[in-house]
Amino acid sequence: MKNYCFGVDVGGTTVKIGLFDREGTILDKWEIPTRTEGNGEKILPDIAQALQKKMEEKGLQKEDMAGVGIGAPGPIDKDGTVYEAVNLGWGVFSLRDTLQELCGMPVRAGNDANVAALGEMWKGGGQGYRNLVLVTLGTGVGGGILVNGEILNGATGAGGEIGHIHIQDGEEDACGCGNHGCLEQYASATGIVRLANRILNATDEDSVLRQGKVSAKTVFDAVKAGDQAAVQIAEAFGDYLGKGLAAIAGVVNPEAFVIGGGVSKAGDILFSFIEKNYRKYVFHGSRNARFTLATLGNDAGICGAAKLILE
Amino acid sequence: MKNYCFGVDVGGTTVKIGLFDREGTILDKWEIPTRTEGNGEKILPDIAQALQKKMEEKGLQKEDMAGVGIGAPGPIDKDGTVYEAVNLGWGVFSLRDTLQELCGMPVRAGNDANVAALGEMWKGGGQGYRNLVLVTLGTGVGGGILVNGEILNGATGAGGEIGHIHIQDGEEDACGCGNHGCLEQYASATGIVRLANRILNATDEDSVLRQGKVSAKTVFDAVKAGDQAAVQIAEAFGDYLGKGLAAIAGVVNPEAFVIGGGVSKAGDILFSFIEKNYRKYVFHGSRNARFTLATLGNDAGICGAAKLILE
Repeated sequence: MKNYCFGVDVGGTTVKIGLFDREGTILDKWEIPTRTEGNGEKILPDIAQALQKKMEEKGLQKEDMAGVGIGAPGPIDKDGTVYEAVNLGWGVFSLRDTLQELCGMPVRAGNDANVAALGEMWKGGGQGYRNLVLVTLGTGVGGGILVNGEILNGATGAGGEIGHIHIQDGEEDACGCGNHGCLEQYASATGIVRLANRILNATDEDSVLRQGKVSAKTVFDAVKAGDQAAVQIAEAFGDYLGKGLAAIAGVVNPEAFVIGGGVSKAGDILFSFIEKNYRKYVFHGSRNARFTLATLGNDAGICGAAKLILE
Repeated sequence: MKNYCFGVDVGGTTVKIGLFDREGTILDKWEIPTRTEGNGEKILPDIAQALQKKMEEKGLQKEDMAGVGIGAPGPIDKDGTVYEAVNLGWGVFSLRDTLQELCGMPVRAGNDANVAALGEMWKGGGQGYRNLVLVTLGTGVGGGILVNGEILNGATGAGGEIGHIHIQDGEEDACGCGNHGCLEQYASATGIVRLANRILNATDEDSVLRQGKVSAKTVFDAVKAGDQAAVQIAEAFGDYLGKGLAAIAGVVNPEAFVIGGGVSKAGDILFSFIEKNYRKYVFHGSRNARFTLATLGNDAGICGAAKLILE
């Protein structure tokens, strides 16, 4: 009986791996380093070896395994073809077929943000929803979209790349992608710091944020303490993000937005800034979408990868 | 053998109906009036009767029919439930089950814009693509989105309602939906007239558009004749629409945009205004999306409806 599977989440510095049963219980999890040298050619053999070793350790045979799900950063289409994953050094190739050959088990592959959305739907903040958008507010803004429970990969694996939706005309700073005025420039952790500096520089208003280094965390801590400048920053953040999520809803009409990433550690207070702006900008057909927090943290990727192969 | 089917496209004033073979040839097509009185309760019985009559006329039995596909304006989910179609007077009910009972054949139902996208993919300007966005530039801006060849209905049938994506802050005029700054306010036929009036009022520049009534048609005719004010209007239109389509691509990463509706009669010249702006605003992963014109005109709805039931 194929009662087990592996979920693999490839990051720029470490590969997270989990051993799961069919119900999604994490029986074991560990990490190996991501060796990106030589155009990342060692990454998949390293993973195959790690899986083999774990199976020996646990006394598992290939017949016991449903297979391997894997998420990786970069555009990956529904057939598991990668279209250049610059962080890993990968060009265009079939991640699915290559890993399948190396480990001798069925493999399914997807973009890491999309796979994380699947994880949150299965075991995290998105439980109970089949049409959801995972919004990851970290260094950048990432997204994973599920339509009827399935990942929306898009034609070339760039589905859900919501961080680069144009949201502001006339922005002078360039986004990492080269464009100007991307959602990521206002709603990521670094975007919030940019907004904070702009707003603090524009007034003399007293603020705890003027003492020490500003971060997304210090901004929302200050909001909770009632700091007015911090509230103004959070309002600007909420306006941009609400507007961006409303545009997304105008395309996919989700049941729920699941908010994850480092910024989401601020907790429910985020919703008071995002939701009212979302409802202001959105088409009425999507006005009732729910907002929830992601709950799986770093396990979302391995959970979603496991779900990918168990489907 | 179930070699035939009906495709039905319900509009606010007429219902278009087509009799198709499995290959998508239109064997017959005709219209009946849409009787919206009494909360639209006569619409579906009228359709059932029209289908019955046509089958008698053609000597067709139920055994010959694969069934009936139907598109209607308003949010309709993948199971054929309508969530209020205000133009028709309809509330919330199962369009699929109701028509199925009335005509005794299998029925599949979808939103009219989404169904038209399916038609364009099958027999029109979207042939060869499985991930496409049909953009209908008419009185309003409508959209239909196909992901891997299937309609993206969204959670409550509002998927692809792209006309109401917020695209401009500070707009004083209200959109028909009640919001301010929707894509439809700049890229529809009426939106182009609004842009034209603004631009003509802002300068004294000579323009053929100052003679007679301005419409989307006169604007693009003037563009073709080299009228500079008209070019400026078309540039503004292209900037708004390019920005909107780039946002959509940031969500669904389509292979192609198929441009239809009355405004699309201007032809390929539209692309010179839309495409460069699209590529300016879009995330690089979607930069290579193709732009084509819809080709089915008023038949897109009945064709897509037929495809819906033949799938």
